[in-house]
Amino acid sequence: MSATSSHPLFGVILAGGSGSRFWPLSRTQYPKQILRLLGSDSLLQTTIKRLLPRIPLERLAVVTNAAQAEVIRLDLYRQGWQQIHLEVEPEGRNTAPAVALAAALMGPDAKRDIIAVFPADHYIDDQERFFEALDRGADLAEAGYLVTFGITPTHPDTGYGYIKVGEPLQPDGLGFRAQSFIEKPDLERAQAFLAEGGYYWNSGIFLFRRDVLLEAFDRHLPDLAACLPLFSAADPAALAEVYQRLPDVSLDQGIMEKADNVAVVPVDMGWRDVGSWGALHELFPQDENGNVILGRALDLDSRNSLVFSQNRLVATLGLQDLVVVSTADATLVCHRRRTQQVKDLVAELSRQNYFESVQHPTVKRPWGSYTVIDTGPGFQVKQVVVDPGKRLSLQLHEHRAEHWVVVQGKALITIGEEMREVSTNESVFVPLKTPHRLENQGQEPLRIIEVQTGSYLGEDDIIRFADDFGRVSEDGGHKTK
Amino acid sequence: MSATSSHPLFGVILAGGSGSRFWPLSRTQYPKQILRLLGSDSLLQTTIKRLLPRIPLERLAVVTNAAQAEVIRLDLYRQGWQQIHLEVEPEGRNTAPAVALAAALMGPDAKRDIIAVFPADHYIDDQERFFEALDRGADLAEAGYLVTFGITPTHPDTGYGYIKVGEPLQPDGLGFRAQSFIEKPDLERAQAFLAEGGYYWNSGIFLFRRDVLLEAFDRHLPDLAACLPLFSAADPAALAEVYQRLPDVSLDQGIMEKADNVAVVPVDMGWRDVGSWGALHELFPQDENGNVILGRALDLDSRNSLVFSQNRLVATLGLQDLVVVSTADATLVCHRRRTQQVKDLVAELSRQNYFESVQHPTVKRPWGSYTVIDTGPGFQVKQVVVDPGKRLSLQLHEHRAEHWVVVQGKALITIGEEMREVSTNESVFVPLKTPHRLENQGQEPLRIIEVQTGSYLGEDDIIRFADDFGRVSEDGGHKTK
Repeated sequence: MSATSSHPLFGVILAGGSGSRFWPLSRTQYPKQILRLLGSDSLLQTTIKRLLPRIPLERLAVVTNAAQAEVIRLDLYRQGWQQIHLEVEPEGRNTAPAVALAAALMGPDAKRDIIAVFPADHYIDDQERFFEALDRGADLAEAGYLVTFGITPTHPDTGYGYIKVGEPLQPDGLGFRAQSFIEKPDLERAQAFLAEGGYYWNSGIFLFRRDVLLEAFDRHLPDLAACLPLFSAADPAALAEVYQRLPDVSLDQGIMEKADNVAVVPVDMGWRDVGSWGALHELFPQDENGNVILGRALDLDSRNSLVFSQNRLVATLGLQDLVVVSTADATLVCHRRRTQQVKDLVAELSRQNYFESVQHPTVKRPWGSYTVIDTGPGFQVKQVVVDPGKRLSLQLHEHRAEHWVVVQGKALITIGEEMREVSTNESVFVPLKTPHRLENQGQEPLRIIEVQTGSYLGEDDIIRFADDFGRVSEDGGHKTK
Repeated sequence: MSATSSHPLFGVILAGGSGSRFWPLSRTQYPKQILRLLGSDSLLQTTIKRLLPRIPLERLAVVTNAAQAEVIRLDLYRQGWQQIHLEVEPEGRNTAPAVALAAALMGPDAKRDIIAVFPADHYIDDQERFFEALDRGADLAEAGYLVTFGITPTHPDTGYGYIKVGEPLQPDGLGFRAQSFIEKPDLERAQAFLAEGGYYWNSGIFLFRRDVLLEAFDRHLPDLAACLPLFSAADPAALAEVYQRLPDVSLDQGIMEKADNVAVVPVDMGWRDVGSWGALHELFPQDENGNVILGRALDLDSRNSLVFSQNRLVATLGLQDLVVVSTADATLVCHRRRTQQVKDLVAELSRQNYFESVQHPTVKRPWGSYTVIDTGPGFQVKQVVVDPGKRLSLQLHEHRAEHWVVVQGKALITIGEEMREVSTNESVFVPLKTPHRLENQGQEPLRIIEVQTGSYLGEDDIIRFADDFGRVSEDGGHKTK
């Protein structure tokens, strides 16, 4: 039996968390899903590329929240994936509201559509077995089950939840009835699970018919179900109003653990949750001393350690079971067995208002990026890169003047009424309160050094008159460069 | 008996090492002696200030080598200590040649002058006992002994050499005859020394009459002694020629261990050799978990660790016995018991041509400082600070143009034939091959952002026509900004 053609799927990718355990690479405004932890694609892009042979772009939805929507959209946009539905939660909730939102808003409302839900931060080695499991799951979903994937455990991991399976659901062994869900166990219990057999890691991947899901919401989360009709409104303010009343509950706890029609599809596909630096250490090839050394780094005589430098030099000596991660403005040094607690460290950084918890010095924008390279009293210096064919908004600043020196490419610059070309090694001055625009009509990146001077240098000192990315200023409008 | 007035001393401060164990704070071109490890003064300045109540500036000499002479001179100059003799070795040798050089070159050649030799990197807590020991030592030196200080050991340290003392030299216990010198022992031996008694840490502080020292050189290091008359020549090329033939030997090994007229003055003065990050960890007050956390750093739940951040954020979690040091461009992470080997790590960095072993992004100059804040193909950006009343040389560059934006203070700028004032928020362009000069006639620092563009951006692309610091260009002349 093959389900590939018989069950076209809707794919819902959950991309709403901040993933603070990957600080300092992740930031509140630069979440884990867009990090390129496993190669040249972000975790989100990797997840989508994995699905594309099975689910076309226009049947995919990415659920995120308002705080991250811009960077997530940019991550999709850079791959040319404008067809993907982006469902924006007014605020980050848990997985049950996120799946409910996607089910309510995505695609035409065909009752028996099969919806497949995927976290955005999984590593899956064996694509073929993944698709095979999807097909089996789709068959069970079609038959009316709420389906989850159970990963065949390779070791007694204490970082995952477990599912104990019950009776086989079909004679050919497509799946099993779920007997119970177990939260992350301690090592002894995890070892007992593996010895006993019949336990699987809870992957957080789900499949269900839309009508079966909605019925489950009705029965197990009636408060949430009652709000579902309000989701269809195109009014963001109304959605925000509804959303703040929703329960903060996961799909596991809210539905799967309560329902009696839950099926488990066991699968062994080289799966890992990319959940922490410790998990990443295990995903990369290690040298003969158990080290993973990436980037501008030099080590003498360390063991079982992960050293990752994004740009600055990191030199290490005699380490044991450590994680060292260095970015342009921050360094994390952490014991390898405690990388789950990086979350707590970041919470403390936020509490103490360290700006390094919020944003990187390099900020991506639809037109390119900028990097803060120096700041001091009354001035700030940025390197600004404008991608070929792109331009910034026509804008002015109330409180700062800007000196621009072109160091690569050629700029088309508007200042006040005047428009002119400025080549490499030329400079211009933009007085405060003067409308200006920066554009790259060339084939190579345009790179300028911008020296800002003024009494106030915040990103929100901007008034936009025209913008290619829909960001024209209004009262309360979006104020970023 | 008091010697304070009867024995005016010459002080010789040995400041020639690179101190690579303090990388990444120390660099080949920014040696340990000028680091401010113990407060707002550099180690060298701390050493000199400690001596000043006892030895006036004009009777002090600092011995360094040619590679470090400029930064050492600047370190003295910033305290207004132009009277101190700076004796420059053509190349770094060991302590015997350095002391010989100082003895030959410093001050008027009075045979019975007492010379006191001090390393530049010691911590001494009890100034009074230090002076008291100096007086006792001077009495013994006057009596014809080669005198060394023996520190009363407080614990079986394996990082210091030991001296075993013999018979008391005078009835009132001024000192003892040295019986033997022992290289750094292992822990078991060090413990035995403390149990047995009569063993002291070898401090590397020496006192002797000039004639007694020269006699010792004649007897124990005749090759070196033969070169001494050539030292008085004012010809640096001749000195360099002589110097390369000198033996690489320490005063301990070359003289003290061989001579039979060596005296030891025991002293308990809260002394420490500031030799490594591990030693520094023990010098600072530790919190209740044994941690020393300095600078922009946040820790959760670490033990017995030193975390020092010069500017960028360092966040640590669950560390045990670690040293983490972060500067603008590099981070060291090292086990606390292995900080002696940072030397080897730096040697490896040098071997692999990491520029982070050579220099900091911020480089001090007689007129102020500059910091490289960004680099890329064909451009480099610096923040340049000119101290009040100072000016750079009149110079030109063959291969680069410079854009200057004043962000603090007011500049007096010469470009070609023109001279003009440039205020905060104004900018100027310096075309390549154009003579130019930057001057700060104001009371506050002048700060400019300099954007360089060109095919070659090395510091040695400079031709000087006039300079306040004697750095006018000639063939083979000194070429730094």
